[in-house]
Amino acid sequence: MTIQQKKPEAWEIKAAIPRAIRDASLAKVTPPLAGLPDTLPQSSQGLPKQILTPREFDLTENYSVTELLAKLHSKELSSEELTRAFLRRAAVAQSATNCLTDLLWEGAIERARYLDSLPAPLGPLHGLPISTKEHHGAKGGNETANASYVAYIGKFQGSTVSLDTLWDAGCVFFARTTQPQTIMHLETESNIYVGGESALIGMRGSVLGVGGDIGGSIRCPAAHCGIYGFKPSAHRLPIAGGTAHMAGRESILSTNGPMAADRDSLELFMKVMLDAEPWKLEPSIRVAPWTPYEFTRPLKIAVQWWDGVVKPHPPMIRALREVSEACKKAGMTVVDWECESLDHKKGWEILSSLYWPDGGKEVLGLLESAGEPILPLTNFIIKDQPTVKELTVTEMFKLCAEREAYRTSYARHWTSTGKQDGHEVDIILCPPSFGAATPHEQSRYWGYTSIWNLLDYPGVVFPVTKVDKEKDVKDFDYQPKNEEDKFVYDLYEPDLYHGCPISLQIIGRRHHDEKVLAALKEVERAMGKHKG
Amino acid sequence: MTIQQKKPEAWEIKAAIPRAIRDASLAKVTPPLAGLPDTLPQSSQGLPKQILTPREFDLTENYSVTELLAKLHSKELSSEELTRAFLRRAAVAQSATNCLTDLLWEGAIERARYLDSLPAPLGPLHGLPISTKEHHGAKGGNETANASYVAYIGKFQGSTVSLDTLWDAGCVFFARTTQPQTIMHLETESNIYVGGESALIGMRGSVLGVGGDIGGSIRCPAAHCGIYGFKPSAHRLPIAGGTAHMAGRESILSTNGPMAADRDSLELFMKVMLDAEPWKLEPSIRVAPWTPYEFTRPLKIAVQWWDGVVKPHPPMIRALREVSEACKKAGMTVVDWECESLDHKKGWEILSSLYWPDGGKEVLGLLESAGEPILPLTNFIIKDQPTVKELTVTEMFKLCAEREAYRTSYARHWTSTGKQDGHEVDIILCPPSFGAATPHEQSRYWGYTSIWNLLDYPGVVFPVTKVDKEKDVKDFDYQPKNEEDKFVYDLYEPDLYHGCPISLQIIGRRHHDEKVLAALKEVERAMGKHKG
Repeated sequence: MTIQQKKPEAWEIKAAIPRAIRDASLAKVTPPLAGLPDTLPQSSQGLPKQILTPREFDLTENYSVTELLAKLHSKELSSEELTRAFLRRAAVAQSATNCLTDLLWEGAIERARYLDSLPAPLGPLHGLPISTKEHHGAKGGNETANASYVAYIGKFQGSTVSLDTLWDAGCVFFARTTQPQTIMHLETESNIYVGGESALIGMRGSVLGVGGDIGGSIRCPAAHCGIYGFKPSAHRLPIAGGTAHMAGRESILSTNGPMAADRDSLELFMKVMLDAEPWKLEPSIRVAPWTPYEFTRPLKIAVQWWDGVVKPHPPMIRALREVSEACKKAGMTVVDWECESLDHKKGWEILSSLYWPDGGKEVLGLLESAGEPILPLTNFIIKDQPTVKELTVTEMFKLCAEREAYRTSYARHWTSTGKQDGHEVDIILCPPSFGAATPHEQSRYWGYTSIWNLLDYPGVVFPVTKVDKEKDVKDFDYQPKNEEDKFVYDLYEPDLYHGCPISLQIIGRRHHDEKVLAALKEVERAMGKHKG
Repeated sequence: MTIQQKKPEAWEIKAAIPRAIRDASLAKVTPPLAGLPDTLPQSSQGLPKQILTPREFDLTENYSVTELLAKLHSKELSSEELTRAFLRRAAVAQSATNCLTDLLWEGAIERARYLDSLPAPLGPLHGLPISTKEHHGAKGGNETANASYVAYIGKFQGSTVSLDTLWDAGCVFFARTTQPQTIMHLETESNIYVGGESALIGMRGSVLGVGGDIGGSIRCPAAHCGIYGFKPSAHRLPIAGGTAHMAGRESILSTNGPMAADRDSLELFMKVMLDAEPWKLEPSIRVAPWTPYEFTRPLKIAVQWWDGVVKPHPPMIRALREVSEACKKAGMTVVDWECESLDHKKGWEILSSLYWPDGGKEVLGLLESAGEPILPLTNFIIKDQPTVKELTVTEMFKLCAEREAYRTSYARHWTSTGKQDGHEVDIILCPPSFGAATPHEQSRYWGYTSIWNLLDYPGVVFPVTKVDKEKDVKDFDYQPKNEEDKFVYDLYEPDLYHGCPISLQIIGRRHHDEKVLAALKEVERAMGKHKG
């Protein structure tokens, strides 16, 4: 009996090209990876130790960015050695998670050698390997960027103010990572790639990467992989020049931000970017130098136990309880953040419509032009949202005015928290998602991250604990409040999530980016974490 | 022979109502104005001295805002006496220029008495009479705001964060001023009113007022009346709550700003507004406290002799020459700002379209709904602009992206001015208009103010000189470069403009609001003006 093989479609043939380019870039890994298992284990976290040399493993496993930079600046460590170690570790991460679009093998080594040849450090990131999302572009070289669209395969993508700044600070770009179809899922899947930046950093195949966030694309994956991710307020970091939809749309803004293996490198990243005064080249950026914040009294923290729409899973509630208890013990004031009156559901209605004022025409047209299938999570965020339709400019202005009214009521609510004692809430402590990473194609509730995009509030996520099936039992008495709540409730099975990272999120008022990172430091101190 | 009187149209009857209300508010002036001439002189600047008491004249004529506040704070002067003096002077200004929509006689006196009764000053503006544009709304009372639309006559308008802030700082609102049809002319005329805030302040019927600027509506009238006017970067001062078109439109932003008889009160106004942290109540406002700027080395000034489209009239070129010579003498570096490569004409094409992404539908509909005639300058800014048409959201996004590209090339040009000596240009010194105030209905070239709205650069105008028919002779050899240049060239006749105020404009980079006011201080010092 012969099995009739389906003839591949034109888009499938085309979609294989970037994967072939990626595989070719991985074939350059020297020495080649040895000892990769034929079948991946349930968790791949043990692979790097098995495959890398002890020296490579040590360099990529045991040091924060600050520590690596100290070694690089003092020439105790060469950039070439460090870069080769991360190139090999990224290749291991790729084999386990499919997170890369390409490994920049030759370019990275050449750059590292150049940096090593200099008599003095080029800048604050001298010699540090950094990864980026593929659709952000590339510095130097002839790299293309398809942004996970078959239609864009082969499109040349130049550099940006963002990449130039990191480059001028002395970094080594060594790997680029994948993005989902339309760059608008909370899970990375497209007709070309699966994977993502957080998977790379989660396996320490990189310790510092650049992400982008318009609904949670930095924070949600970072939270699910147990790494750090920071979304500053919009117009704080340069972003122009990467692949973006509806260029010129201002109704809701995306922002770049750091994803990192340790806390302190978030602040380092911000400082490096803003010391370069990006507003001089990209004038939409606010003129606001990075000005570290110092708390002069114990924090006042509001805990958002749920968002009034969807109840978080038990491990998330446990994480909130553990961290808020630790904060209380450290002398901070902890109050509740009541969401019911703030109507997060209304927020989502405004936001989801403002994501696609053209009704999704541009991106659906891009998919159609290449003949590639529309994936379920693309349908979810465009076609399944009753709010998404092509608007007239007048309808869009009306919706922007509603957004502004929503922001105003939220801001006034926040301001009112200072009425009684003269001190308004410093930060909100809240879930970055209803729980741990969901099974494939189930990331269908964005509310815990996206509401802060609507409000343009800065947010940072940080690892807290892991799902523990003994502690985090399912509450069989819970009565879901609505359809989305039921969907999320049904997703929880302690056995399925056991051992998965659980992270929390700290949110500050608009433009208080520095304060959010300062608060993270205080909260982690209260948690007993002294080293980032 | 009897003359057949045309029966008034419905809109004319309605439009007479707010004028009757205004006249009733003026009838309250006590004692009534005596000695008003039946026919106005060519210049009305001499009227206040003829009509006011010597004490009223002294109080309203001879002191800066800072000096008045010192007298008020020390109780050397009562707010009631000062308020009554300005109420009467504003009434004189009204009789000469038709600048008011209403005099807030009772409310202002009641407020002043309340302030006088307090044991200590309420705030930094304690007791100071302030005027506002009518469409900004009103604090307390039951004032309506028609924003010069017949359709809006009788519409109640509440207060705003902007007015609340000035109120909480202790001011007295005593008069509201008119705006042109659609609030989008550079001359104040509507089917209800003529006049304007600058005319009131130009006659010192007020020493501090609140204006708004999306194309020059603070700066151009201030320049023509010989007063000070400051347009900060957008989103610096609260603005929500006044009457605005296309609420929610973000393609081009209007901003409020001070119009004042003296320089220092511009900075005082900004400080009072930002000390109140308006972003806590109006979250579109940038979190940016007012931080006075100090120059640590002599300024580097770029002089824009013309904008590459329309040649300024001779008195404006003389003003540029005189001030730039004074700056050079004071040790500043003065270079030329070459506009040709920056294509201001292209800037206008983008801007004029972005003013009306709905093709003007909303405002034309408002005029039509009341049956009121469309005035020539409304036709000019909507119907006569080939760029104005109703856009789809996709077309608007494209235009916003073009705007951003334009801003980017301008920003990079500015940054490049520092390449040779390491110091980029601090400010641009430029005309706020091609010349002095034009005859009726001829304000048809906005480029000298509106380009800075497109770029979102802060700008201040300040008085420099007066047209002098002996010095400022017409250049009969000049060959106009294009149609607009010819229109403007033909407008100039030395005899017609003799004695009219000529002002200049200082422009800074986006968000450098404080630097612009600091530069004005340095430039005026170079000009030999020590007192604001």
